[in-house]
Amino acid sequence: MNAARLEAFSDGVIAIVITIMVLEFKTPHGDDLKSLIPLAPAFLSYVLSFIYVGIYWNNHHHLMHTCKTVTGAILWANLHLLFWLSLIPFTTGWMGESHFAVLPTGLYGFILFMAAIAYGILQYLVLSPQGKESPVRQSIGNDWKGKLSPLFYLIAILCTGWHESISISIYAAVALLWLIPDRRIEKVLDN
Amino acid sequence: MNAARLEAFSDGVIAIVITIMVLEFKTPHGDDLKSLIPLAPAFLSYVLSFIYVGIYWNNHHHLMHTCKTVTGAILWANLHLLFWLSLIPFTTGWMGESHFAVLPTGLYGFILFMAAIAYGILQYLVLSPQGKESPVRQSIGNDWKGKLSPLFYLIAILCTGWHESISISIYAAVALLWLIPDRRIEKVLDN
Amino acid sequence: MNAARLEAFSDGVIAIVITIMVLEFKTPHGDDLKSLIPLAPAFLSYVLSFIYVGIYWNNHHHLMHTCKTVTGAILWANLHLLFWLSLIPFTTGWMGESHFAVLPTGLYGFILFMAAIAYGILQYLVLSPQGKESPVRQSIGNDWKGKLSPLFYLIAILCTGWHESISISIYAAVALLWLIPDRRIEKVLDN
Amino acid sequence: MNAARLEAFSDGVIAIVITIMVLEFKTPHGDDLKSLIPLAPAFLSYVLSFIYVGIYWNNHHHLMHTCKTVTGAILWANLHLLFWLSLIPFTTGWMGESHFAVLPTGLYGFILFMAAIAYGILQYLVLSPQGKESPVRQSIGNDWKGKLSPLFYLIAILCTGWHESISISIYAAVALLWLIPDRRIEKVLDN
Repeated sequence: MNAARLEAFSDGVIAIVITIMVLEFKTPHGDDLKSLIPLAPAFLSYVLSFIYVGIYWNNHHHLMHTCKTVTGAILWANLHLLFWLSLIPFTTGWMGESHFAVLPTGLYGFILFMAAIAYGILQYLVLSPQGKESPVRQSIGNDWKGKLSPLFYLIAILCTGWHESISISIYAAVALLWLIPDRRIEKVLDN
Repeated sequence: MNAARLEAFSDGVIAIVITIMVLEFKTPHGDDLKSLIPLAPAFLSYVLSFIYVGIYWNNHHHLMHTCKTVTGAILWANLHLLFWLSLIPFTTGWMGESHFAVLPTGLYGFILFMAAIAYGILQYLVLSPQGKESPVRQSIGNDWKGKLSPLFYLIAILCTGWHESISISIYAAVALLWLIPDRRIEKVLDN
Repeated sequence: MNAARLEAFSDGVIAIVITIMVLEFKTPHGDDLKSLIPLAPAFLSYVLSFIYVGIYWNNHHHLMHTCKTVTGAILWANLHLLFWLSLIPFTTGWMGESHFAVLPTGLYGFILFMAAIAYGILQYLVLSPQGKESPVRQSIGNDWKGKLSPLFYLIAILCTGWHESISISIYAAVALLWLIPDRRIEKVLDN
Repeated sequence: MNAARLEAFSDGVIAIVITIMVLEFKTPHGDDLKSLIPLAPAFLSYVLSFIYVGIYWNNHHHLMHTCKTVTGAILWANLHLLFWLSLIPFTTGWMGESHFAVLPTGLYGFILFMAAIAYGILQYLVLSPQGKESPVRQSIGNDWKGKLSPLFYLIAILCTGWHESISISIYAAVALLWLIPDRRIEKVLDN
């Protein structure tokens, strides 16, 4: 099993996940502005999830690029990540349709949390055999982004009981944090 | 990140966008001509959108073919383009089901407008580092098609208030303009 | 534009078309045999369409394999073929849900007819520049399968007025005719 | 036809199958825990099917990697396998929505049974021309996993009449059996 095939399959799943979310916009029954406005939360959720899946696709590529041998553990860690990503369309649709109600907004954060954990496991499995002197591992350093994100998601989940807009703001802030592409690996690979 | 992977992912998303639109044709409840006729506007919208997505796929390929290094900016400009393309199935379905009502027809134009702007940004980012003497940039010249299209979409959106058939005609006319494949880049690459 | 990219994109669309058809099986509301039986026509339609799309995928690959330069005309002829293939899930679903009513069964044949014509155009555009002495063109010979199929579809459409089971039998018979993989091109390529 | 193209197409179909299953989670109408709980069986079914499709993708890759020439028989055996895999989203959705009722749980096992048979045929066609001394064939040995699985599915189907939880446990146990990646082929290829 070479990494290229794993990437191609992951790309396929991620491409479908990102596109399937749009099916959650049910065609409105009316044709005036009144029937469009209730879709606003669904649209906002879609934008947020689109960015998140885009970030995962981006980081996943940079990570797998450094992967020379795909072990069985990496393969299943990758499928585990895809599993949580595949649930994003569901939580996105529910959060949007419920107009950011407490439970759906919390569940959205939970899925993000699990995806972050799954990514962390995959990253560990890919990078650990590369040795401490590996330039890629050095560039990631203490991986503060990867460690802080799940923490932020947990805080956001707790905040749903207080006010949902805070949770959404935290989700958006973490996405913004990652939007800056992971140049850490990129830089080292270029040298 | 090499351009081939970016293309493969974009291909995946575009292939799904083009195919998902057909899900907007809900199976009619009856089985006679009467139950098929209300689908005519949905079919027309589908044909128009199929052609538009086909044009984007075609032009996207020609553009990315000239891209040697994928920067973070290009990557996100590409995702930004895919975002607007991914909304085409929704507006296509709504425009069709509402039988070309004012708002859905205008929104359809708005999505086309945003996709055109997103493509313009991507094109700028890909071509600008190639230098003015780049044969590809010379072949595009003043890029009148790329500059006129968003203008036409704006005119079409304004026309929805007057008569929707004019807007649809403008959308169709712009598509026709682009149907002629972008040989400008092609020609230069062959020399 | 090289043929490999065209194939990859077509593969993507065909893979989605073949899989999307299964979405036409709506989950039955009950959980006994009674609620499963009405799905039998939908299942039969699915099997038939799965085979047809499989045949197109197979033949498409063999054809494009001989294509050296992808002209603009070939590109749009290919999108034209994909357009008709993309409508197969809709007609399959309608034919199945209407329990093989006259109009849906006829429309199914019409889409098969148009897809056959579209494939004929694509084949002409790919093979005509190869010269009469081209081994591939010689192997196709008079292309009786390609010429007879649309004729059979027309007969099947006419038969819907008489009895739908005849039309279905003709569709199945033509599929069987093609199931035997197109070894004509294959043989020549091997020599 | 080279094996790479067959793999790419199969990958596409499998990626869609695995992702389409999530569409079976209909967005709940309420936004409290009460409206989420009825989704639990659907979620469990999804997890089980996700693992099964992941196993098939994994084993399929290892098998096709040893395939040098794709004959027409292999091609159609592969499509036959994809056909049964494409029905998994339907049975998964039905089993989940019916809260593991007798018939849907039995049908789920039937589809697994047919997929296992289809995989067996494909495996036979790919491996038989490789000769008895082929290291890959030797590594598979008596293929006890491949031979036992269909048997277990049959037992599980029979058990639905007794108690569905036994059937589900058997499905889960067989999945677990396969979760251990098929290192038999892997090992030999590495030597």
